[in-house]
Amino acid sequence: MELARSVLAAQPFSALLGAEVVSFGDGVAELRLPIRDELRQQHGLVHGGVLDYLVDNAVTFAAGSVLGADIVTASLAVDYLRPARDGELRARAWVVHRSRSQAVVRCDVACDGDLCVTGSGRVSLRPTSG
Amino acid sequence: MELARSVLAAQPFSALLGAEVVSFGDGVAELRLPIRDELRQQHGLVHGGVLDYLVDNAVTFAAGSVLGADIVTASLAVDYLRPARDGELRARAWVVHRSRSQAVVRCDVACDGDLCVTGSGRVSLRPTSG
Amino acid sequence: MELARSVLAAQPFSALLGAEVVSFGDGVAELRLPIRDELRQQHGLVHGGVLDYLVDNAVTFAAGSVLGADIVTASLAVDYLRPARDGELRARAWVVHRSRSQAVVRCDVACDGDLCVTGSGRVSLRPTSG
Amino acid sequence: MELARSVLAAQPFSALLGAEVVSFGDGVAELRLPIRDELRQQHGLVHGGVLDYLVDNAVTFAAGSVLGADIVTASLAVDYLRPARDGELRARAWVVHRSRSQAVVRCDVACDGDLCVTGSGRVSLRPTSG
Repeated sequence: MELARSVLAAQPFSALLGAEVVSFGDGVAELRLPIRDELRQQHGLVHGGVLDYLVDNAVTFAAGSVLGADIVTASLAVDYLRPARDGELRARAWVVHRSRSQAVVRCDVACDGDLCVTGSGRVSLRPTSG
Repeated sequence: MELARSVLAAQPFSALLGAEVVSFGDGVAELRLPIRDELRQQHGLVHGGVLDYLVDNAVTFAAGSVLGADIVTASLAVDYLRPARDGELRARAWVVHRSRSQAVVRCDVACDGDLCVTGSGRVSLRPTSG
Repeated sequence: MELARSVLAAQPFSALLGAEVVSFGDGVAELRLPIRDELRQQHGLVHGGVLDYLVDNAVTFAAGSVLGADIVTASLAVDYLRPARDGELRARAWVVHRSRSQAVVRCDVACDGDLCVTGSGRVSLRPTSG
Repeated sequence: MELARSVLAAQPFSALLGAEVVSFGDGVAELRLPIRDELRQQHGLVHGGVLDYLVDNAVTFAAGSVLGADIVTASLAVDYLRPARDGELRARAWVVHRSRSQAVVRCDVACDGDLCVTGSGRVSLRPTSG
C-alpha cells in the first residue's frame, strides 16, 4: 500500500488529476478521484479521457501487485455505460488471470456508487533488453 | 474547423492537458498535444492516460464531423506500441464506417512521427429521451 | 430456456460446431461445447475462432435475455489466457449494465474448469428502420 | 504463400469452415471464405462467430508473416459494421507495428466488397518455456 501510494505520488499526471490509492494488493487495486470542473468536457460531464485514465491506472496497479513494478500495459478495452457528473469516481481493478509474464485485469469505474465504465487490460513484464 | 476549435476550447479537461485541433472535417480529425512534465508517469514517460485521452477525443471528433455534435462514445480499444517521451503527440482519427446513428473510427497516435498507440472506437448519436 | 434452445437450434453455425445451451435468463447465459478434432488448429489446440464464437454467442444470448430477440452485437473484445486442449468448453456471460436499448456483457470461457478466455461485448436493439 | 497454405490446410477448423489463403507475406495476409448455409445464424445472416474466426485467423497469419510460426494471439477487438448475407467474405489483415516479440495488426472483413467488420489484434512470440 505504501509502495502504491509512492508510485502514484511519483506520477505527475496522477497528481495533476488528483487521484489517490484506496486499496492495493493481492491482484486488486482501487483508486479514487474527486470530480472537479477541470475534469469536465463541454457539456459539464466528466471527460471520457478521465475515465480512461482511471481504467488504465487501476488496471496497471492491480497487475503490478502480482507482477511487480517493471511492467508495461499492452492493451485496454473500455465500455462507457453512463455519464459521470458529480461526486467521486472510484476505479476498482482485479486480476482475472496471470502467468509468469502477463496479467489480464478487469476494471469497473463508478461515480458515487453508480457503475459508469467497465474495462479490461493486458499488462506484461517489460521485455529485458539493452 | 472553427466548430471543432470551439468545442475543444469548451472542454476544461482538454485545456488542462493542452490539446489543440490540427484538422477536422469529412470524417477525419487530428489533435496535437505538446509533451510537458505534468503529463508523465513515474519513469518520465508520457502517462498512458494521456494517450487514452487523445484516442478518445480524436475518435469522438472524427465521428462528430459526420454525425454532428450530439454524440456519445460507446466503446474504445487501445493498443500501446511504444512509449512516448518528448516532443509532440499527434492523434489522427478517421471514420471507417458510418450508419445514420453510429460511426466506427480508427486512430493512430504518434510522438514526433513515431507511431506509439493505435486504437479504435464506436460512437453513437445520443438516444433521444427526456 | 426453451426460447434459447430453439434459437441455438435455428443457428446452422452453432449446429455445425455442436454448441448447447446450459442456462439462460435474467441477464445470464451459459453455453457448452464438447471439444472434437474438427475444432482444432494446426498444433492440436482448439482454434481461437471457436473460442471467439463462444464469447460472441454467449454475450448475445445474455443480452437477449434482457433486451429480447431483436438485437445486434456491436463490438467484442477478447483476451486469450491459456490454450484449450481437451474436454468441454463452457462459456458463461453476464450483463453488467443495460439501458433501454443496449447491454454491456462480460464473458468467461473455461476448458474443463480452467479459465482460458475472458471477453466482453456490447449489444444493441436493432435500429427500427425499413 | 506455400507455408501459409499448408498451415491453413493443417487447421481442421479452417477446413470445416472452408477458408482459403488469398495472399500472404510482408506483414499482410488475406483470407477468403465462400458463404454457405452452414455458416448462418437464425435470421439467415452469416454468424458473428464466422466473422470473428476470419479476423482471428487473418490477424494471426499477418503477424506470422513477420514473427514466424511460433506465435500466440493475445487479444482481439472486433467492431461489427453491417451484416453479411451472401457471396464471398474476404478478410485482409496488415501489421501496423512490430517489435522483436510482438505485432499489432488491423483487419477488415468485407462481404462481396462491402466492409462488414473491422478489428485488430495483438500477437506475441510464444514464451520459451518447458
